[in-house]
Amino acid sequence: MNPLSPTDENRLDAAWLNEVQWDARGLVPAIAQDAETGDILMVAWMNREALALTRSEGRAIYWSRSRNRLWRKGEESGHVQTVREIRLDCDNDVIVLKVEQLGGIACHTGRRSCFFRVLRDGQWQTVDAVLKNPDEIYQ
Amino acid sequence: MNPLSPTDENRLDAAWLNEVQWDARGLVPAIAQDAETGDILMVAWMNREALALTRSEGRAIYWSRSRNRLWRKGEESGHVQTVREIRLDCDNDVIVLKVEQLGGIACHTGRRSCFFRVLRDGQWQTVDAVLKNPDEIYQ
Repeated sequence: MNPLSPTDENRLDAAWLNEVQWDARGLVPAIAQDAETGDILMVAWMNREALALTRSEGRAIYWSRSRNRLWRKGEESGHVQTVREIRLDCDNDVIVLKVEQLGGIACHTGRRSCFFRVLRDGQWQTVDAVLKNPDEIYQ
Repeated sequence: MNPLSPTDENRLDAAWLNEVQWDARGLVPAIAQDAETGDILMVAWMNREALALTRSEGRAIYWSRSRNRLWRKGEESGHVQTVREIRLDCDNDVIVLKVEQLGGIACHTGRRSCFFRVLRDGQWQTVDAVLKNPDEIYQ
């Protein structure tokens, strides 16, 4: 079988990738959600290649806007996200990944989730603990 | 007390609003999550006024990019989102609302969540049922 047959699901022009409403930069936001607890862990961006690779490799791969390259989540920290499910919303412009978060830490601050601040009394108050010192994560 | 005192938490230049990284359009994405089940219900946009009103009124108020006006979620459908908690991520550019979804329907298609399609066998497959006909929701 031709590895580049028109029906190949991994092609960057595959139908399922074309259904996504990529923005002007060719990106969509992706929400990583803990598949067990339902906690929202983080939000990052994906381009076509990132989403195609996330599907084929079964781990979360994002597009880093700051570094302008693919970002295999966990490539430095070891905090890989194993992908259990990929969902798309009704507008085709947001992805949800249900993931198993290796190490139990998604945030670069060493916390479980990036959403560790809650609005209370007119202030963003930190309510979740640092589980590991970032200096120990990124050596 | 002066209702527009510099410390008034509801002012549009309040410190907690200034901490949010508004994009070039003055918007941030907001994820509505069911406070009970943890299900991700929808993603919409907020400007300063929408976020300030969401806090003061205790219900989700978004900025509709298509209608270019504030959108009090549920204003037509009755499917109001009562806000239990407002969170901000480590980059200050994404909001999470933990909500109680009135009517149990967040999506304009009449489904519980907007994320009703799962990627399976290279196709976005609808896996969640329509709970109410949209024609009955938007009369």
